Amino acid sequence: MLATHAFAAQNATSPLGPFNFERRDPGNKDVVIDILYCGVCHSDLHQIRDEWGGSIFPMVPGHEIVGRVTRVGSGVKGFKTGDIAGVGCFVDSCRVCPSCKAGLEQYCEQGMTGTYNSYERDGKTPTYGGYSTQIVVDEAYVLHIPAGLPLEGVAPLLCAGITTYSPLKEWKVGKGHKLGVLGLGGLGHMAVKLGASFGAEVTMLSSSPSKEADAKRLGAHQFALTSDEKGLAKFKNYFDFIIDTVSAPHSLPFYLQLLNRDGTIILVGAPPAPHQLPGFDILLKRRRVAGSLIGGIKETQEMLDYCGKNKIVSDVEVIPIQDINKAYERMLKGDVKYRFVIDIASLKK
Amino acid sequence: MLATHAFAAQNATSPLGPFNFERRDPGNKDVVIDILYCGVCHSDLHQIRDEWGGSIFPMVPGHEIVGRVTRVGSGVKGFKTGDIAGVGCFVDSCRVCPSCKAGLEQYCEQGMTGTYNSYERDGKTPTYGGYSTQIVVDEAYVLHIPAGLPLEGVAPLLCAGITTYSPLKEWKVGKGHKLGVLGLGGLGHMAVKLGASFGAEVTMLSSSPSKEADAKRLGAHQFALTSDEKGLAKFKNYFDFIIDTVSAPHSLPFYLQLLNRDGTIILVGAPPAPHQLPGFDILLKRRRVAGSLIGGIKETQEMLDYCGKNKIVSDVEVIPIQDINKAYERMLKGDVKYRFVIDIASLKK
Repeated sequence: MLATHAFAAQNATSPLGPFNFERRDPGNKDVVIDILYCGVCHSDLHQIRDEWGGSIFPMVPGHEIVGRVTRVGSGVKGFKTGDIAGVGCFVDSCRVCPSCKAGLEQYCEQGMTGTYNSYERDGKTPTYGGYSTQIVVDEAYVLHIPAGLPLEGVAPLLCAGITTYSPLKEWKVGKGHKLGVLGLGGLGHMAVKLGASFGAEVTMLSSSPSKEADAKRLGAHQFALTSDEKGLAKFKNYFDFIIDTVSAPHSLPFYLQLLNRDGTIILVGAPPAPHQLPGFDILLKRRRVAGSLIGGIKETQEMLDYCGKNKIVSDVEVIPIQDINKAYERMLKGDVKYRFVIDIASLKK
Repeated sequence: MLATHAFAAQNATSPLGPFNFERRDPGNKDVVIDILYCGVCHSDLHQIRDEWGGSIFPMVPGHEIVGRVTRVGSGVKGFKTGDIAGVGCFVDSCRVCPSCKAGLEQYCEQGMTGTYNSYERDGKTPTYGGYSTQIVVDEAYVLHIPAGLPLEGVAPLLCAGITTYSPLKEWKVGKGHKLGVLGLGGLGHMAVKLGASFGAEVTMLSSSPSKEADAKRLGAHQFALTSDEKGLAKFKNYFDFIIDTVSAPHSLPFYLQLLNRDGTIILVGAPPAPHQLPGFDILLKRRRVAGSLIGGIKETQEMLDYCGKNKIVSDVEVIPIQDINKAYERMLKGDVKYRFVIDIASLKK
């Protein structure tokens, strides 16, 4: 067994603190990764505070993992010691259902095995995430990281990147499309970068006037203040797509009005209460509401390769693990541009 | 001016009764149609009772019109005296916006001119519908009725038919798809007929056990009672598409659960209150909610030609206009298989 240092939550109200546990000895198909960076996702906080219910404690969060391969099982073909590798939101799935066979393991009909706050396929061994010194994962669920990118900026691609890349690809968003990005946080800033890179005209829809300059620096062509009713009038029936990254309560009908005929609002965040959906708002313009959840292994690799080629990474603030509880408080206030990433070296001292 | 007999509502609480008015003299591009049959749509009742607001009185309802051409303007090219012609939910639109140019006049950005309860493009001349002896319509908004179909069964195709045909075509529903049809009324029975005709496996989702035999006679391959939780369990994550024809309040999240990954629920009815849409219900399976509103002139003609070729008409109960108020009461109880159609001869006596 592999002795591993980590930070964990012991229950839904405790702050994160040091925690030691053992990773399994690598099996035939397993890759052992010495973790270098792990991104801090808003869902980490939801889960350590048990806001979605069913949390498993102690919990080691983290599903935006980049590290170096230190050992591989004898049957591993795709990785070798020294490779830079990534792990995203899941580390296994049933592998036989139609979704798994289609490379859409995130929709596994038996349920994917989350990188943390989940159980291995045996249904009883808890999984621990990337706020830890190392991880052991079947190579089928490990990603190759393209060379030439700063690794701390790559980590958030494993969740924030693929969560926005996948629906933009699924809906073929690109040249000639007007794309609205709702919310400039971890997901939103990746949606701006990727949407602009795909050739769409990107408009940032934000409630913070202070974010205009930054949105444009990230690639947005326009900025619209969501509290400015007058300014928003020109965006009525305007967008072909809106990607809605906001998990806080907000008015879906308000943003539906900004969609043109045949426009689609893509939800990648899930507010705590159900959205309101007035039938006429989507009937009268043949509008659509779609959901999307991260992405499969194949598409995540495609996204990483695309980002490597196009030099796209996340804008991050690197922190030592000892600052994680403070970082959560700042994240809650939106005080991060645009993703905290833990330098796991701070765990190894 | 053309003296016209009709039945009208004088206000939101009065029953329908006799009403005389004059149609305009036919212009250069106009077709005069002697109305033979007019279908009774649930929206007629919503509008005469002002349930959607903004109703214009006196109101002559009716937008499922079939009749015989009695006169054409000198510039009319597509119709001649004696032709059988149809008029649906609108009789004009701006003709220049992107939606009109795309043949999607129902989404006209200036607003289509409804066949009734609307104003002509002058913004002041009220339009009167098909519960009347004749109508005068620009030929660009008149449909050709294929030969060989019983005309009383054709009338409802102009609204119920195209309302279900259009989204089934838009979403390319056909062979290999599992289609659920929610609600067996005027729209639902057309969705069953058309969905089956397109090659989809059709499942009727109904709250009335008494409708099973009829649903199967109409072409449904399966029947699921929506109140039977146990029986419905086998349809969890099952459908590729559900077409939701129900305008009464009902639980959208309940039916979302029946959609498979990438499944789409298409709303063609709009309940009075907004639907509830929990984000996770569509994120976790990449599901979609779409709306659709009737169809454009080009597609309505395509639908009529398709129905002519495939001998598809609506199942109707023909009534004299004098029975219209009783018919509304029966319609409210769902006591019609599946559309009342007025024999306009009863207005000409």
